[in-house]
Amino acid sequence: MIDPLANVRIVLSHTTHPGNIGAAARAMKTMGLGGLYLVNPKCFPDAAADARASGAVDVLQRAKVCVSLDEALHGTTLVVACSARRRDLSLPVVNAREAARLLVERAGQQPVALVFGTEMSGLSNEEIYKCHVLAQIPCNPAYSSLNLGAAVQVLAYELRCAVPELAGVPLPTLAEAASHEETELFYQHLERVMISSGFLDPNKPKRLMPRMRRMFGRMRLEKEEANILRGILSALEKQK
Amino acid sequence: MIDPLANVRIVLSHTTHPGNIGAAARAMKTMGLGGLYLVNPKCFPDAAADARASGAVDVLQRAKVCVSLDEALHGTTLVVACSARRRDLSLPVVNAREAARLLVERAGQQPVALVFGTEMSGLSNEEIYKCHVLAQIPCNPAYSSLNLGAAVQVLAYELRCAVPELAGVPLPTLAEAASHEETELFYQHLERVMISSGFLDPNKPKRLMPRMRRMFGRMRLEKEEANILRGILSALEKQK
Repeated sequence: MIDPLANVRIVLSHTTHPGNIGAAARAMKTMGLGGLYLVNPKCFPDAAADARASGAVDVLQRAKVCVSLDEALHGTTLVVACSARRRDLSLPVVNAREAARLLVERAGQQPVALVFGTEMSGLSNEEIYKCHVLAQIPCNPAYSSLNLGAAVQVLAYELRCAVPELAGVPLPTLAEAASHEETELFYQHLERVMISSGFLDPNKPKRLMPRMRRMFGRMRLEKEEANILRGILSALEKQK
Repeated sequence: MIDPLANVRIVLSHTTHPGNIGAAARAMKTMGLGGLYLVNPKCFPDAAADARASGAVDVLQRAKVCVSLDEALHGTTLVVACSARRRDLSLPVVNAREAARLLVERAGQQPVALVFGTEMSGLSNEEIYKCHVLAQIPCNPAYSSLNLGAAVQVLAYELRCAVPELAGVPLPTLAEAASHEETELFYQHLERVMISSGFLDPNKPKRLMPRMRRMFGRMRLEKEEANILRGILSALEKQK
């Protein structure tokens, strides 16, 4: 499979704070993105960018510094602008998840770009008009000011989630589960102990055992855990 | 409607860098979350936290500083741990989206918590054992080191997206679309001009007009735009 994320450019236009460029690089790398394009950054390279990039300095080192947005978009066939501001433009507006879906779909075949504007004012109208779709991150209307690095993180995350092969989380090694028979032996053992202790009256069992089954059933016992519980029950039986 | 996000606590345990506490507060507020709990933060309050919080200093001011995780979790009925590390524990592992869904579902009725560990080593096993579910953010297995603020941003974003009433993006005011008749008048006008200019031979029209319809159809003309285009065509007709 071609990795569609390798075809996604993250374009930061006229970024003011180099720390944000570093944060963006780190956010990108955590999600498997590597193509960083910087249009006229105010300070780059810069020690503050390296510091915030942490283990993603390689993304900064491979970043392409461009003199114009056109240069950064050269060769792309779908350009999505990320914007917090409401704009009365005729560009279609989609949320972050849908934007990621559109980008990944096209990126399977051709280069695409996701463009972020300056920290203070976002993208200019002139920049927006070079884009095809406007992506908005759902946010608190009373305070929609995502940090640039945070916005890149959300979109990078959605891009990864949009690639079915990459969206999974690593599964922990499952411990061996107790078999049906082992679980049933445990319930029988538990019932014996409850009866011998006088807690359960076999002539008036009420709903005690079904209740125990509901509780322990939810635990989905592991083999070793079932053994431990039966060990406890055996010890209780001997104690008498 | 009770806002379920008001019932979601973000718990940061033993955070080392106050800047990350500030970034977390900002991330929370952008997504409409306000309940920040700090378990034994190394430096708090701190100017670096205020600086990174930007317009979310109020979240820091209302943050509850706790001496133990138990204190921060007091009264909650569902606790989700956010962890990047793979752990061979028997806690169920879900991805960020599913974790948000579980939290929001419960938060409609009772307080819930999402817990983040220290920057370097995450949550201790002792802390993890106080949680019910482990949330993992899908990430690059070769570099899974999300910044703490960035991890809070992704989960806070998913929490907002999990509340149907809040997940939307503001829709731009749609301009009045051209009606079918207006569009048809435009096509007729265009055809006349193309014929009079000699570009379109009415005896050999080929597929020119269908092609124009396909192009302009995709534009989904606004009323005003249709008027402008017809104005241009009229001007061209007079010019001859």
